[in-house]
Amino acid sequence: MSYNFRDLLALEPLSADELSFLLDQSKPFQEIQKHPLKKLATLRGKTVALAFFETSTRTRISFGAAASRLGADQMNLQAEASSLKKGETLLDTVFNLNAMKPDCLVMRHAASGAANYVARHLDIPVVNAGDGTHEHPSQGLLDALTIRDRLGTISNLNVTILGDILHSRVARSNIHLLGKFGCKFTLCGPAMWVPRELEKIARVQTERLNDPPLSADDYILLYQLNAERLRRASANGIVLHPGPMNRGIEITPEVADGPQSCVLEQVTNGVAVRMAILYLLISGATEADAHPALEVKSKESANASD
Amino acid sequence: MSYNFRDLLALEPLSADELSFLLDQSKPFQEIQKHPLKKLATLRGKTVALAFFETSTRTRISFGAAASRLGADQMNLQAEASSLKKGETLLDTVFNLNAMKPDCLVMRHAASGAANYVARHLDIPVVNAGDGTHEHPSQGLLDALTIRDRLGTISNLNVTILGDILHSRVARSNIHLLGKFGCKFTLCGPAMWVPRELEKIARVQTERLNDPPLSADDYILLYQLNAERLRRASANGIVLHPGPMNRGIEITPEVADGPQSCVLEQVTNGVAVRMAILYLLISGATEADAHPALEVKSKESANASD
Amino acid sequence: MSYNFRDLLALEPLSADELSFLLDQSKPFQEIQKHPLKKLATLRGKTVALAFFETSTRTRISFGAAASRLGADQMNLQAEASSLKKGETLLDTVFNLNAMKPDCLVMRHAASGAANYVARHLDIPVVNAGDGTHEHPSQGLLDALTIRDRLGTISNLNVTILGDILHSRVARSNIHLLGKFGCKFTLCGPAMWVPRELEKIARVQTERLNDPPLSADDYILLYQLNAERLRRASANGIVLHPGPMNRGIEITPEVADGPQSCVLEQVTNGVAVRMAILYLLISGATEADAHPALEVKSKESANASD
Repeated sequence: MSYNFRDLLALEPLSADELSFLLDQSKPFQEIQKHPLKKLATLRGKTVALAFFETSTRTRISFGAAASRLGADQMNLQAEASSLKKGETLLDTVFNLNAMKPDCLVMRHAASGAANYVARHLDIPVVNAGDGTHEHPSQGLLDALTIRDRLGTISNLNVTILGDILHSRVARSNIHLLGKFGCKFTLCGPAMWVPRELEKIARVQTERLNDPPLSADDYILLYQLNAERLRRASANGIVLHPGPMNRGIEITPEVADGPQSCVLEQVTNGVAVRMAILYLLISGATEADAHPALEVKSKESANASD
Repeated sequence: MSYNFRDLLALEPLSADELSFLLDQSKPFQEIQKHPLKKLATLRGKTVALAFFETSTRTRISFGAAASRLGADQMNLQAEASSLKKGETLLDTVFNLNAMKPDCLVMRHAASGAANYVARHLDIPVVNAGDGTHEHPSQGLLDALTIRDRLGTISNLNVTILGDILHSRVARSNIHLLGKFGCKFTLCGPAMWVPRELEKIARVQTERLNDPPLSADDYILLYQLNAERLRRASANGIVLHPGPMNRGIEITPEVADGPQSCVLEQVTNGVAVRMAILYLLISGATEADAHPALEVKSKESANASD
Repeated sequence: MSYNFRDLLALEPLSADELSFLLDQSKPFQEIQKHPLKKLATLRGKTVALAFFETSTRTRISFGAAASRLGADQMNLQAEASSLKKGETLLDTVFNLNAMKPDCLVMRHAASGAANYVARHLDIPVVNAGDGTHEHPSQGLLDALTIRDRLGTISNLNVTILGDILHSRVARSNIHLLGKFGCKFTLCGPAMWVPRELEKIARVQTERLNDPPLSADDYILLYQLNAERLRRASANGIVLHPGPMNRGIEITPEVADGPQSCVLEQVTNGVAVRMAILYLLISGATEADAHPALEVKSKESANASD
């Protein structure tokens, strides 16, 4: 088995075998996170462009750490400092970045489909780091890796997704991945936040009474994940959250910090999964591209090591 | 021939020979951009300070990529996070950065002459990355390199500069460089945007009728670079743009993406030109400074490699 | 003598011997700043997380330069881009960063005690880079190093602290450090800016007449450090300022740039002191942690060098 795509844009088109391959490839990079020296030279001389057209803290830092630990350099473009305000199109901004010859583009954008759109026009691997309400594939993979480590399998599980599912690209990536392994889903949250089109693939639990706006107090009363609800739902189940957590509203500290919570393992696994993704896409692209005619024989290239 | 200045502040004072030397020095760094591994160890252990007192995306990323590919580290100061708001003078800010011992300062500032002012007070090489409406020398060089590659020469060309020339430091750097090689200029744009003082060195084409404000529709009607105008101006000429492009207003997609357009080659060449500049200034400064008395013989210096 | 703490949160709890040890450890790193190649491989493969929850330019760049010159990678979190706006707690933000496995956390926060609070919950070394009005220990150390270099000692000096002492964590770190070496303090400034509780450890000079608000003109008249006042206070004394300086208000250019001023030496020493801190904390932590059972024997770890 191998990963035969140039990009990682979404989990929906991937087969269970391909998804398992990506999870398996992440295992050695998980081990690296436990090592006193976490830096490899694998992608030394390569450059990862991080283009975040939407504010992000953890995902950007996680991809940056993944790039650094593989020995790669970074180009950082953040939306608030970008030329977009001056009227440049998304494609021109990305083409410009690409003309500086990065080896991979990691991209976040507020519009669903933005990463697919960009990837169709680029000649380097593109990683979707979240696009609107569409997908967040690296998050879906790190969630699955975390579940597989804790429960020993990701097959045929009962998965409840709780909260604002309508606006959640993470929920969609989770459903696409875990659905391939026979998991059954229950979608639970205020009616306004549970998309109707998902009813065909999941059981839906909403309180029809609560029309928007829903107050924080109402949310706590009806949906907050607390110890009692978790006990009733699953005494041995595990709890994941992509962060940032809104403590005291959507989840109680008792659950967030309890033994069933995996939130920090998720973060650690995120770096490992992203190392695997960057490694596979960049080293794969290099093998495809590297034919002798492209090699430079100048004096400078003799120095092209470090 | 060589480049005998400590800084790169402007193209105006440079001779044709000095400018040609800088372009020639950029050639091997162009080759590096085609190499699968683009990283050199040439400036390993050196630090480039990037002080951007004015918002920039592409120029900052380009200088950063140039520094990384030469193996140098970076110090990043961006205006919006700077102490300037607290009442510190520009010179104090720069002196502070310099006291952390970078090997070169790359600086952008909204005030014309700011880089020259700072350079007079510093003991390290200063690169002007754009100062007000004065000059943007690395952009002038990358434009010339792009033209020379496409047309085989930068001598005795007919050059039309179109748009807002009054506020364009790029236009001034282009005129200073290409003028040394016998190029003839036509300046074209709304009267309010074509500075009178340039009439002595160029032919000026403006529509006197259009007093400000000029609407976007008027601009399109009179000055937009479209295929028909480009064909009449020059069937074999090339089109450059420093970015960001305002598509549909100043240029049509047909021209921007057409075979005569060089906009992405410009960006790729920008990294090469900036590598050449940093290499020449920093390694030149090091040779001048490096006398044995400065070497440290402590135990630590034995580790000063990597 | 050695430094036996896991963190550097404050200077108050440190003994004179421990403080002297930290200053002594900074000496070789001062020499590095004079070297043409300032980069060591000492912390290669380590990662320093810089979490600045309050705007900073010079301290952030200084810690970044210190990390780079030791060969360490960085993770950068800045408050304005952080998840805090989305309702995440400080502890969750820091736990998330920690889950990405940095080897040290350098942290600035507007709340006094924030670094201590975080350190109690983390398993990696924490460096306080300024917390509210509490302490700024690396600044206190670099000030002491600068004084010791200039005057040959930090013992039994007469130290005047001038200006806004109430809100100054730097003043507090200076008093805690220099007080251990028998220095006598005079606190001088508008009454509203000189905290009453410091009267027991210092002589206080304030003008009781000036109730708030104090105009800039009044401040200049009563407290501005000018050449005449400096001459009367100390003909051979030295002047330090943590920056940014408000020239023309709190200090005259004649004094700021005069032979008694050490402001730029402070900045250069800042990088050295921070290299010493990161080196001691991270290499200390590694020695404690590094037992054979943690080593990874996989194929990947064979590449874990560079």
